[in-house]
Amino acid sequence: MASSLKSWFPIPKSSHFSLANLPFGIISTSSKSTPRAAVAIGDHCLDLQEFSSSGAFSTLGIDASVFSKSTLNDFAALGRPVHRSVRKFLQEVFAEGGPHAKTLQSDESLQKKCLLPRDQVKLHLPMHIGDYTDFYAGRNHAFNVGCLFRGPDNALQPNYTHLPVGYHGRASSIVISGTPITRPNGQILENPAATPKVPTFSACKRLDIELELGAFLCKSNDMGKPVPISEAADHIFGFVLLNDWSARDIQAWEYVPLGPFLAKNFGSTISPWVVLTDALEPFRTSGIPNETQLLPYLQEKEEKNVYDIRLQVDITPEGHETTRILNSNGKNLLFSFPQMLAHHTISGCPMAVGDLLGSGTISGPEKGSEGSMLEVSKGGKETIKLNGGVERKFLQDGDTITMYGVCGTEETGLVGFGECSGTILPAPKL
Amino acid sequence: MASSLKSWFPIPKSSHFSLANLPFGIISTSSKSTPRAAVAIGDHCLDLQEFSSSGAFSTLGIDASVFSKSTLNDFAALGRPVHRSVRKFLQEVFAEGGPHAKTLQSDESLQKKCLLPRDQVKLHLPMHIGDYTDFYAGRNHAFNVGCLFRGPDNALQPNYTHLPVGYHGRASSIVISGTPITRPNGQILENPAATPKVPTFSACKRLDIELELGAFLCKSNDMGKPVPISEAADHIFGFVLLNDWSARDIQAWEYVPLGPFLAKNFGSTISPWVVLTDALEPFRTSGIPNETQLLPYLQEKEEKNVYDIRLQVDITPEGHETTRILNSNGKNLLFSFPQMLAHHTISGCPMAVGDLLGSGTISGPEKGSEGSMLEVSKGGKETIKLNGGVERKFLQDGDTITMYGVCGTEETGLVGFGECSGTILPAPKL
Repeated sequence: MASSLKSWFPIPKSSHFSLANLPFGIISTSSKSTPRAAVAIGDHCLDLQEFSSSGAFSTLGIDASVFSKSTLNDFAALGRPVHRSVRKFLQEVFAEGGPHAKTLQSDESLQKKCLLPRDQVKLHLPMHIGDYTDFYAGRNHAFNVGCLFRGPDNALQPNYTHLPVGYHGRASSIVISGTPITRPNGQILENPAATPKVPTFSACKRLDIELELGAFLCKSNDMGKPVPISEAADHIFGFVLLNDWSARDIQAWEYVPLGPFLAKNFGSTISPWVVLTDALEPFRTSGIPNETQLLPYLQEKEEKNVYDIRLQVDITPEGHETTRILNSNGKNLLFSFPQMLAHHTISGCPMAVGDLLGSGTISGPEKGSEGSMLEVSKGGKETIKLNGGVERKFLQDGDTITMYGVCGTEETGLVGFGECSGTILPAPKL
Repeated sequence: MASSLKSWFPIPKSSHFSLANLPFGIISTSSKSTPRAAVAIGDHCLDLQEFSSSGAFSTLGIDASVFSKSTLNDFAALGRPVHRSVRKFLQEVFAEGGPHAKTLQSDESLQKKCLLPRDQVKLHLPMHIGDYTDFYAGRNHAFNVGCLFRGPDNALQPNYTHLPVGYHGRASSIVISGTPITRPNGQILENPAATPKVPTFSACKRLDIELELGAFLCKSNDMGKPVPISEAADHIFGFVLLNDWSARDIQAWEYVPLGPFLAKNFGSTISPWVVLTDALEPFRTSGIPNETQLLPYLQEKEEKNVYDIRLQVDITPEGHETTRILNSNGKNLLFSFPQMLAHHTISGCPMAVGDLLGSGTISGPEKGSEGSMLEVSKGGKETIKLNGGVERKFLQDGDTITMYGVCGTEETGLVGFGECSGTILPAPKL
């Protein structure tokens, strides 16, 4: 395939959206405001509604009306074999000398209709998300945070290596990259050591990020019918970056005994293009070794069950230059997404197409690879020095966070996620 | 109004669905399988699609197409003043000598089309639920459970009286009364005292109920825009009974540090008829006194902020007679639903029409009023004696649980919820 991945269409070498990728998203344009499906390619995207209306997909035998929907749910529901054949077909459409190159290459009028500069399209949430679950499978993060709260000897709870710890999140608060995030107000305990413990009402003072991957599902299961681990990968449509913004002070006061709530539901940002599971296949690798003997329902045949994705986070304080504050990697997970799904459904929990699973914060083992500011600043005790003499412990109003994730090399074509960004607005005055 | 609540239509005195109630639901019939809206009245229901197509609602100036939808979301979104006028109009249609009685009373052919025996209709989930949140506002339950885990001195966490503790639930697992519930499999710790802690895979052995009220929302708020406590009641469409089935052994092992997950997402049952907020107005009362000084965003002007609803739970083991295992009351809450909503959105969390809020388990203060078997059996230490010599600590396969809730008297007309029931199926063999 590598040789056919040279395209007749200009794709910058540094683009996350090489022919080896072709991620799916939902776009609209000023001339046509109805959201519809597209794939990203280089600095452009291919409007799939327009392209399919030319009859381009007729040889594939799929229902091309899925590309006219305002979410990717119906396309996702066609299943991974269909995603695979559509992506392969599109690779052949764009490949230099590919078997379907003539479809578009020789038709300038079709190109003009279908190939839109990406900076001229508006991006929408790619899926209708019925339910969102956030896991905690980044062992280094769980350990780092556990150390801050309970010391290294008790950092991880006894259940941690036996199952992917997770909790239900708030689907309505998932927003697309570029959506501003309003700093939450809430109850915080200014002095946790004082007695009695009396909270004050305040804007969050310890506003943080969490660097995660998100997986969208493409297959449902009925209530009472678990998804076996051997079939779980077939349920995963593709991946996005996920910034699980977190209000640490609100969280510390509210989270016992039922878990994080308002500390998490004021907004979670995802990158707009869904990178198909197939596009990440070449980048499979092993995750964090788990020495615990897992119960059979979590035992995965595939040892390379996570992905080698270079993850980076930049901060841009308003009016200042950008600083890269961390570098991590998607492989820093103790459990894979198939394991998360097998666990999630072992109770019989029904999952739907479009449901989103978050990985948990992906921290690497070494300094500079921590996936949250809580970790980098050691619980707010140390200052993070940024370019231009700016300092941070947590986020300030006007700060913009941008996450990136990319696999592969420019030689064979990058497979990346684009940007996952958000800017902090001040808390409402109440 | 009391005098006009006598109906020309036969309504059994013992019916939960008197003229003082008129709850809304979604029905289908064997002759017309498309789900549509209805109100329950006595042993019948009024098919609102059919009734509105006769032009009955034309004087109200509302868009009657909402009654042809497969959920009540669009009707709910019209707002509480519209719910009020529709309910009042329907009361006048059914009232003896009421101003609109002739609409239906004198038209036998319309009666035949619209008034369906309730035992001949199929009931569906009344709302599309975007997100579901479960609170923990039943102070007696929280205290009882806290005692079991930590003893009476530390039963309630320091945050408990300052805010309505809550967590995000799983919307996809909400089912309607009558849906069987499959016992979940999962990881349990057979011997919590042993070291190291190694879980086993098992069907849940401590399957439990939780007696709750659920509130559906009829008004959305944008992300970043909290709902003030003074406006929160306008966001509440109506109420249902909620059985938050719980796998106590799975919960005990999994819930640290992020809260309950698989212990809750295998199914939660609601009663099918939404009792409008207006129908409960006459039954307002005071809840459990809270001596904590609340922050202003939780201070409610209305002191009577909960409802006097008699709650009952019956168990029917397969092949055995029914035993009433508990009597509680809807007033046993420390926080009201408006307080829950004001708290939920103080972070800026966006809520949508159709979202469901659970109260948390509603236990009374005295013996026999505990809202879960965990409490009645003192954590599984004591046996619950049922009629016919049957004993239980937790639920067995084939057990049917039926919850009831009712307000008022037969004199003025009962306002009730009907049944919220479910039968336990065996865990899947894996």
